Amino acid sequence: MKEIELLKKILPSLHQADSVEVGPGDDCAVLDLGADHLLLAAVDQVVANVHYDLDATAPQLIAAKLLKRNLSDIAAMGGSASWALLALASTHNNDSWYTDFYAGLESEALRWDVSICGGDLTGLRQTVPGDVASLTILGTVPGRFPALRSNALSGELLYATGCFGNSYSSGHHLNFSPRLREGKFLAETFTRTMIDVSDGLLLDAGRLAIASRVGVEMWPEAVPRRTGAALEQVMGDGEDYELLFTVAPDAAARLEKSWPFSEVLLTRIGRIIVGPPGVVVNRQGQPLAEIYPAGFNHVVK
Amino acid sequence: MKEIELLKKILPSLHQADSVEVGPGDDCAVLDLGADHLLLAAVDQVVANVHYDLDATAPQLIAAKLLKRNLSDIAAMGGSASWALLALASTHNNDSWYTDFYAGLESEALRWDVSICGGDLTGLRQTVPGDVASLTILGTVPGRFPALRSNALSGELLYATGCFGNSYSSGHHLNFSPRLREGKFLAETFTRTMIDVSDGLLLDAGRLAIASRVGVEMWPEAVPRRTGAALEQVMGDGEDYELLFTVAPDAAARLEKSWPFSEVLLTRIGRIIVGPPGVVVNRQGQPLAEIYPAGFNHVVK
Repeated sequence: MKEIELLKKILPSLHQADSVEVGPGDDCAVLDLGADHLLLAAVDQVVANVHYDLDATAPQLIAAKLLKRNLSDIAAMGGSASWALLALASTHNNDSWYTDFYAGLESEALRWDVSICGGDLTGLRQTVPGDVASLTILGTVPGRFPALRSNALSGELLYATGCFGNSYSSGHHLNFSPRLREGKFLAETFTRTMIDVSDGLLLDAGRLAIASRVGVEMWPEAVPRRTGAALEQVMGDGEDYELLFTVAPDAAARLEKSWPFSEVLLTRIGRIIVGPPGVVVNRQGQPLAEIYPAGFNHVVK
Repeated sequence: MKEIELLKKILPSLHQADSVEVGPGDDCAVLDLGADHLLLAAVDQVVANVHYDLDATAPQLIAAKLLKRNLSDIAAMGGSASWALLALASTHNNDSWYTDFYAGLESEALRWDVSICGGDLTGLRQTVPGDVASLTILGTVPGRFPALRSNALSGELLYATGCFGNSYSSGHHLNFSPRLREGKFLAETFTRTMIDVSDGLLLDAGRLAIASRVGVEMWPEAVPRRTGAALEQVMGDGEDYELLFTVAPDAAARLEKSWPFSEVLLTRIGRIIVGPPGVVVNRQGQPLAEIYPAGFNHVVK
């Protein structure tokens, strides 16, 4: 968490040109090129033994996870993903590891209609495994209204896709499916406020609330749990890669009725309230961070 | 070089959508978003003790080098740089190193009108220093004709900006100035074929020749040398970050007369010939790779 706190201080202070509609601080940057569509851009990385167990994870799965993490950021804006660029620094010295990594990336990219249009590869001469792979995803979103973290209004209802907790031991962190179709459907009709839940439900709900300067009332017992997950894991574990979003009360029934993705849970888990900005409470008004204090940590080893 | 060879095999085989005008293999990918301008995208990284000496290099300079390497790729397309995203994985555990790194990045970005619109930071828990920083640069190029590696025609003259060799010990690899203005000027009027020389003049001339399916006659004695550089360093050293490009014979005199950058050398160093594609020879027809066999290697330690 230390790194995220540091970035949160540095990134918003960086100067942004007028063409940057949304800069650092949301799931993607939103850039205006003068086309009908806005450009979405985000970068994310996976690091050996931080985001995956190097000895136990096939290179194909590492590559697929890297792409899908980034796709989840595009999904949270309601966008479509189009292009990706990969930078890989690796200690592996056998060609087959790289070939497998790229095969996994290519196969996942084909599944989501993404072109891997650029790349860089550096061999590391270290004795300690230290693979670092970063991927920049580029996509588009129609018109001038991508879903942002900062648009929530008090009175709106809080919804989530899928279920939560226990991502590592269940293998979900490798085999999840980014919610691209769902994000697009939601942003087109039902929501202007969305975030991808990757660092823990409670933490990411807090981020949405901070960005929107609102409070959140969340109902922990209503949140769908992944098999084997205790309630504190549901609230605190990372790597769920689900969407958290708000819906106007008068649209909620229509959303639930028209939800076309029968295999993906859609659950009302709380509401936006007037309250201290960024604070997530339960029905009794108790801050959930006090009840579930364990923050998310990516370290797998 | 091993990594580059591997990428050269893998990247061109990746599937590209119709929106990808130019895929992997040139200095930038060229993407069509349906705007007046085409989008340029490239990724490059700097790794501790591969691209710089970790103990001896200020974080500000590392960050600036990373951005400028990428700007050099935009320059080689004749484009303008607009946005950048940074992924940083670092073993440093003091905030001041990161603050200095971002300060260096921001200051260089302001100089070139680039907005740092996104980033990711991962802390590494290693005992061995293994910092990896990758940056994706995004830019634009007007119309449908960026300068490419693949447009050279036999009979054209070969030109280069600046001087070559001895980049590491002279400090040029840290304090160079990417040729953005020069690249734009050249692509607007004088050339359709350009490459950035970052892996050694001979190697990058060969790449231009392979992409264009032509031969190159190069005049080593005509190439401007950086102070202290022997001829083999001029031909083989990397990290020059100069532009290599071709000009039609009837435009050469006009180019030399109208060159507006008095502080940047402009030198005719050879010509495009009919010959085995990718082979660079001297006036006597001898392959220069036989005379200057030392290939470039980024390792600084």
